[in-house]
Amino acid sequence: MLLIWVLLTGIILTSAIVYAQDPLPSWNEGPTKQAIIEFVKATTDQSSPKFVPPAERIATFDQDGTLWVSHPMYAQVMYCLERVPAVVKTKPELAKVEPFKTVMSGNREAMAKLSMKDLEKILAATLTGMSVEEFNAEVKKWLEKARDPRWKRPYTELTYLPMQEVLKYLRANGYKTYIVTGGGQDFVRVYSEQVYGIPPEQVVGTAGGTKYGYGKDGKPFLTKEPRLLLNDDNAGKPEGIHLMIGRRPYAAFGNSPGDRQMLEYTKAGSGARLAMLVLHDDAKREYAYGPALGLPNTKVGTFPQALYDQAKKQGWTVISMKNDWKRIFAWEQ
Amino acid sequence: MLLIWVLLTGIILTSAIVYAQDPLPSWNEGPTKQAIIEFVKATTDQSSPKFVPPAERIATFDQDGTLWVSHPMYAQVMYCLERVPAVVKTKPELAKVEPFKTVMSGNREAMAKLSMKDLEKILAATLTGMSVEEFNAEVKKWLEKARDPRWKRPYTELTYLPMQEVLKYLRANGYKTYIVTGGGQDFVRVYSEQVYGIPPEQVVGTAGGTKYGYGKDGKPFLTKEPRLLLNDDNAGKPEGIHLMIGRRPYAAFGNSPGDRQMLEYTKAGSGARLAMLVLHDDAKREYAYGPALGLPNTKVGTFPQALYDQAKKQGWTVISMKNDWKRIFAWEQ
Repeated sequence: MLLIWVLLTGIILTSAIVYAQDPLPSWNEGPTKQAIIEFVKATTDQSSPKFVPPAERIATFDQDGTLWVSHPMYAQVMYCLERVPAVVKTKPELAKVEPFKTVMSGNREAMAKLSMKDLEKILAATLTGMSVEEFNAEVKKWLEKARDPRWKRPYTELTYLPMQEVLKYLRANGYKTYIVTGGGQDFVRVYSEQVYGIPPEQVVGTAGGTKYGYGKDGKPFLTKEPRLLLNDDNAGKPEGIHLMIGRRPYAAFGNSPGDRQMLEYTKAGSGARLAMLVLHDDAKREYAYGPALGLPNTKVGTFPQALYDQAKKQGWTVISMKNDWKRIFAWEQ
Repeated sequence: MLLIWVLLTGIILTSAIVYAQDPLPSWNEGPTKQAIIEFVKATTDQSSPKFVPPAERIATFDQDGTLWVSHPMYAQVMYCLERVPAVVKTKPELAKVEPFKTVMSGNREAMAKLSMKDLEKILAATLTGMSVEEFNAEVKKWLEKARDPRWKRPYTELTYLPMQEVLKYLRANGYKTYIVTGGGQDFVRVYSEQVYGIPPEQVVGTAGGTKYGYGKDGKPFLTKEPRLLLNDDNAGKPEGIHLMIGRRPYAAFGNSPGDRQMLEYTKAGSGARLAMLVLHDDAKREYAYGPALGLPNTKVGTFPQALYDQAKKQGWTVISMKNDWKRIFAWEQ
């Protein structure tokens, strides 16, 4: 009897210790951190009027600029640009055609001036026309050797430690965490499990169709096609959430105008809903852009005044990288 | 020490008892049941060369004719036909237009002769043009009162008990179970959790687009549109699996030519893969159609000789309802 008592006491003490541990150690104390903790408590405490049954606990995260660095250029765009030589090798006629000619020139200044239409041509040429398996293998290979220009580290190391803590904290409390990205669904799925602990089936992103066919060996395979099925940005985010998840999230995290509708849609649900917006205002440790610099919405990842105002009005929480995050990257001291 | 020993022994004995319980009590002993059990053992035993890590354990199930009765007419088609009067009430001009005129006449013989094109018009009129929430509420209401013509029971009670056992058995062994249906994704999601224990985010089906907009109160909502995003049948099944799951299943279950590509695709993966085909050969307890009656592929749910031959050739397992299933429905004695 005494032994059982000792064992039980040990278990209770251990639980108490686990509970007392700070689930968000890379966050500074303050109302932002508190908003996350209070949301989790309100939705997981059975006696709370805002309790959410485990099956309905869905949290969605934008990726670029919310979970990892997206400045000055999205990793996926870098991938596509760096794939161009290989594509031109198999289709030499492209070398003389824009925008491939500019990319092949290696002139970074000229490349920075490419239009959205040019970029779309590059995306179509580098992301489609191969089997799903070939594409996955190419992305994996690239991720291993590619380094970002500032920290000289693999892109997969540029995830924000405070957001990784939020992902784990939500999952430990029964939330299913999803990435809902304007980036390519197939691209992000290659590394989402390893980098964020999010399995491929929980990645919603911009997606093209595939075509089922048979190889010379008679084995079936899927070829990636340029046909766009889901443009997972702006209104496409709640539409994509409905298509792929079928439930309204209880928590959503974004950083740019492309996340506006996802945050609105989440916040418009009944009960406790958490909508958070990462503000890039840390020029020293990461980047400062958007209202922190008084810039209009002109560049990738910017965050215009109108979005900031909507956040304040609709009760979203703005995360200041500078003030709310104690550490930004896991490898920082 | 003795006490710990007693406790541990208790735990071990309990595990042994659980293990010894038959996970598939509604299946007759034989090679079909054995194929399922051997597949689960081979893919979950860490020492097996065919071990599959838990994160990759995906099993996909067709619904109509595989998990529940689809004969003589799909439940969803019944829903759409029965919704027509309500649609005509809001749009009286439809009453004079085919195929709505025929449906409004109530003439079952004439309705049975409607073409696929007619049916598509009825589906578009009854499944789209309302908000996602309105649609869910309508389906829920219908399911409560609708009864199938033969057993006079709610459609949701016409699921096959042996397949429910397979779903649970796979889940108990770390498999994520998905429905991959030619039926409407939004339709099946309304009841999948309650009926099969499968959450809406694990239902892949024929899906239309939605449109994000704002109500008079300024609140955002999604409207169901007739624009087809995914025709989740035939080649659309592996394409839908790639879109929505992003991994090749280890096990797949179907019953008709619309499942051929899903089964092929599953079976073409490396390691242990299970492909199963439900054969409706039980005229007494359910229905007999397809090769059991020597019929060609002419009706809903039929199963032509060519599919049977492919199953034999590619190592799929054919499930005979008549011989392999001890019980068909949970409410049967």
